[in-house]
Amino acid sequence: MTEIDPVARLIAIEEIKQLKARYFRLMDTKDYAGLRTVFADDAVFDAACSLSIEPAEDTENWIHQGGDNIAAFVEAAVDPLRTVHHGHCHEIEVLSATEARGVIAMEDKIWDAQGKLFLHGMGHYHETYRKDGGAWRIVTSRITRLHVILGE
Amino acid sequence: MTEIDPVARLIAIEEIKQLKARYFRLMDTKDYAGLRTVFADDAVFDAACSLSIEPAEDTENWIHQGGDNIAAFVEAAVDPLRTVHHGHCHEIEVLSATEARGVIAMEDKIWDAQGKLFLHGMGHYHETYRKDGGAWRIVTSRITRLHVILGE
Amino acid sequence: MTEIDPVARLIAIEEIKQLKARYFRLMDTKDYAGLRTVFADDAVFDAACSLSIEPAEDTENWIHQGGDNIAAFVEAAVDPLRTVHHGHCHEIEVLSATEARGVIAMEDKIWDAQGKLFLHGMGHYHETYRKDGGAWRIVTSRITRLHVILGE
Repeated sequence: MTEIDPVARLIAIEEIKQLKARYFRLMDTKDYAGLRTVFADDAVFDAACSLSIEPAEDTENWIHQGGDNIAAFVEAAVDPLRTVHHGHCHEIEVLSATEARGVIAMEDKIWDAQGKLFLHGMGHYHETYRKDGGAWRIVTSRITRLHVILGE
Repeated sequence: MTEIDPVARLIAIEEIKQLKARYFRLMDTKDYAGLRTVFADDAVFDAACSLSIEPAEDTENWIHQGGDNIAAFVEAAVDPLRTVHHGHCHEIEVLSATEARGVIAMEDKIWDAQGKLFLHGMGHYHETYRKDGGAWRIVTSRITRLHVILGE
Repeated sequence: MTEIDPVARLIAIEEIKQLKARYFRLMDTKDYAGLRTVFADDAVFDAACSLSIEPAEDTENWIHQGGDNIAAFVEAAVDPLRTVHHGHCHEIEVLSATEARGVIAMEDKIWDAQGKLFLHGMGHYHETYRKDGGAWRIVTSRITRLHVILGE
């Protein structure tokens, strides 16, 4: 592994934290064009543990390939709902000037159109990142769950 | 815009994160003299979206000018109550050696004197900061909401 | 106090944030061997305010000395339960190349084996850290509470 300049490493960590902050904010404010830009064109998003600690059996509905498909999936999933996602305690490891990986603790709350809490989940994102054209983007993202409450 | 030294930029971001951490902690521990110091003398605090996604109509009760007035407003609002505020996913942009702006995701919970949850809110702070006399302070702060639950 | 190089200070802060992130993640994923490594051999953990704003009277059950004892205490306390801990708004002050202290806002939720929420707490960790053998570890950790709800 190439040695990374300490300042470049700190800058990469801060940029990836802000990348993930935009992911949460742009999803919750329903800015799907903005959300598209946080994912690489070849990104893979594995949301099979969205509703439960165990992965959903219909994985084809929950694992999406390509930034366009991911943004379309998220839009279809959250657009009719009110969502709040929070990220905590980023553990980001910079592997090279253009590659990194990370684990981010998360909590999400989703209310249906009637204002009823539909889902309250807690877990982690396991992710890889790539810097391309001057900007870090999410390349792979997989959700694991500590706990999920449905229909609270 | 003047070029900012990368290390100076990282230091500013960390100092502003800790400034906002003090804002939350000093409010929740009811240290209003400490809370006063996080605001610039000429600060403006727009809390019109405290209780709802839509701004309150009586904006004069929710928008406060001057650090002294802001600290007095917060004290009057939260002193009889038990409050917990959390900040997440800071997006801080350093504009110059003495100016910055940021968006911070937030969650607040407020219980009344009988221990009943009075408010549970989620949203963002949209802020500007200025470094003056060696310390960063909040110059403008405006709350927007993703969701607010009253009287849960 | 010796002057600390600004970049070394930023690196220490980031490493301590990731140390605390591992504390939360390893506890919640029940990796107690991993959890052991975040504490110094001579660490002291004061969890007397786990269940209430006021410290428990049986402090011998809540204050533990030594990394091995702390890891064993946490394992006994949380292993039969489902736990989620979140850390927010780290205020970390680097005192020297090998010493630091910090305050971290926190929220914890604990469910019993029947899926009933047993505890929902909010407060702060007050901690000191030491770098030894190339790695930062927690030397002292004390919980204070803003609010605790039991048996919600």
